[in-house]
Amino acid sequence: MLQLFLVGIGTGNADHITKEAENAIRSADLILLPHKEDNKAELAQVRLSLLQRLEVGDDRIAHFDMPVRRQQGSDYDRQVDEWHEAIAQRWQSCLQAHLPSGQGRIALLVWGDPALYDSTLRIASRLGLAQQQVTVIPGITSMQVLCSAHGIALNEIGSPFLVTTGRQLREAGWPPNINTLVVMLDGQCSYEQVTEPNVTIYWGAYLGMPQQILMHGALGDVKAAISAQRQRARAEHGWIMDIYLLRRG
Amino acid sequence: MLQLFLVGIGTGNADHITKEAENAIRSADLILLPHKEDNKAELAQVRLSLLQRLEVGDDRIAHFDMPVRRQQGSDYDRQVDEWHEAIAQRWQSCLQAHLPSGQGRIALLVWGDPALYDSTLRIASRLGLAQQQVTVIPGITSMQVLCSAHGIALNEIGSPFLVTTGRQLREAGWPPNINTLVVMLDGQCSYEQVTEPNVTIYWGAYLGMPQQILMHGALGDVKAAISAQRQRARAEHGWIMDIYLLRRG
Ligand SMILES: C[S@@+](CC[C@H](N)C(=O)[O-])C[C@H]1O[C@@H](n2cnc3c(N)ncnc32)[C@H](O)[C@@H]1O
Ligand SMILES: C[S@@+](CC[C@H](N)C(=O)[O-])C[C@H]1O[C@@H](n2cnc3c(N)ncnc32)[C@H](O)[C@@H]1O
Repeated sequence: MLQLFLVGIGTGNADHITKEAENAIRSADLILLPHKEDNKAELAQVRLSLLQRLEVGDDRIAHFDMPVRRQQGSDYDRQVDEWHEAIAQRWQSCLQAHLPSGQGRIALLVWGDPALYDSTLRIASRLGLAQQQVTVIPGITSMQVLCSAHGIALNEIGSPFLVTTGRQLREAGWPPNINTLVVMLDGQCSYEQVTEPNVTIYWGAYLGMPQQILMHGALGDVKAAISAQRQRARAEHGWIMDIYLLRRG
Repeated sequence: MLQLFLVGIGTGNADHITKEAENAIRSADLILLPHKEDNKAELAQVRLSLLQRLEVGDDRIAHFDMPVRRQQGSDYDRQVDEWHEAIAQRWQSCLQAHLPSGQGRIALLVWGDPALYDSTLRIASRLGLAQQQVTVIPGITSMQVLCSAHGIALNEIGSPFLVTTGRQLREAGWPPNINTLVVMLDGQCSYEQVTEPNVTIYWGAYLGMPQQILMHGALGDVKAAISAQRQRARAEHGWIMDIYLLRRG
C-alpha cells in the first residue's frame, strides 16, 4: 500500500523540526522535491540541507518541476483548480517512475504547517487515496515564529484573534470587535491602509532564517519604515516572505 | 546573567518536540516544574517522561506547588493578577534556593505553544528581566494537532479563521463573515448553542495522547453524541481537554 506523509518542516530554522517529522523523513522510501522557477533558491536550500542532515541519499529523492499557474483571465478558482490538478499529475508521474510497485512511504516537505495556508493537503486529495493512507505531520508555523521572536502572545487574555490574508484585510477590513489580527500572504503592505489610531504592529520577514528581520511599534509611527525596509530587503534577496500581527490598544 | 527559556513542548505526544526545545531543556541548569492540585496526573507525567527521556537528572529539577487562584468575587481580572503575582513569587523562591548566584539557564515547560492561551509569558514579565534574557521556543499547538488528526486545513483557500474561546462564542456569537472558528478553553460545550444549519464540527480531546478521541460531522447530527462522549471520557479519566473547529458550508 502507498502511504503519503505531508510533513511540516517549520519556516527555515532547521532546529524547529519535530522528532515526528524527522522520523517520517528518515523512514520515507521516496521524497518528492518540487523545484520552482523563482528566486527562492534559499527555500530550496533549506529543504536540501534538511535532507542532507537527515542522511537522505539522492536515490530516495524524486525532483520535479512545479507547473506554473496560468495567470491570465479572471477565473481565479479555475486557475487554482487546473494548477492543483497539474501538480497532482507530476506527483503521480514521480510515483510511477520511482515506485512502480505502487507500494511504499512517500514524504512531501511542507513549509511551516500543512494546515495553514498551504495547498498540499488539497492536492493530495486528488490522488484518490483512502483517508488512512494520508498522514499530516504538524510543523511550527510562521505565526508562531513571529510571536516567539517578538516575545509576544497571539491572544490577549481570554480574547479571540483573527488569522487572515493581505487581500482580506484590504477588502473586508478589520472587524471592530476582534482586537488582534495576524496577516499572512500580503504582497502589498496592506497594513498601510489601516488608519485607526492606537494600533501596534509586530512585523517579521524571513523568520527563522539567518536574514530574519523584526520591526515593531505604533503602526502610524513605523509603517513607512517597515515598507521601506521590506522593499530594500526584497531587492537585496530577490524575494521576501513576511507576516505581521496588528493589535488595538 | 539569568536566562529564562519558555519552552513549548506540544500537547502530549513526545514526538512533537522540536530540536530547539530539546536543546533548551538539555542545556538548562534548572527546570521549574509546577505541581497542580488537580486530577491531571497524566499531564504532569508527560512532562516528567519528557525530562527522563532527555536525561535531565532530578538535581536539575525544582518542583514547586502551583498557588490556587481565588475564585470568589466577580473581580476576575484582579484574581488573575494576584494569581500571576503569586506564581512569579514561587519562581523567584525556586531561583533563590537553587541558583543563589543569580546566574544560569532556567527552563519552563509550556503546554503546546507559549503564544497560545498561556500565561507563562505574562508571568515571566513580572520578574523584571530584560527582553534579551527571555527566550520563547515555539511548540506544536493543540489547534495543529486537531487539524492533522482530522486531515483538514485551518483555513479555506484565501479565507480567514477566528481562534476564540467557549466563553466568547457564547457571549459574542459567531461573526457572519468568518466561516471558520477554532474554539479552545470551552468547559461548557458551547457548540451546542450554535443552531445555524450547514455547519461541520471537527472535535478532538486528549490530542496527541494515548487516550485521544476524534469525532466529526454535521453539527446538528453529532453534537449530542459529542457532548455524551465528552462527559463519559471526563468521568473515566477525571479530566478532559478538548478543542474543535466549526466550519460553515
Ligand atoms: C503559502 S503561506 C504558507 C504558510 C505556512 N504553511 C506556515 O505554516 O507558516 C506563505 C505565507 O506564510 C508566511 N510565511 C511563511 N514563512 C515565513 C517566514 N519564514 N517568514 C515570514 N513569513 C513567512 C508569509 O505570510 C507568506 O506569505
Ligand atoms: C490554557 S490553553 C493552552 C493551549 C496551549 N498553549 C496550546 O498551544 O495548545 C488550554 C486549552 O487548549 C486546548 N488543548 C490543549 N491541549 C489539548 C489536547 N491535548 N487536546 C485537546 N485540547 C487541548 C483545550 O481547548 C484547552 O482548553
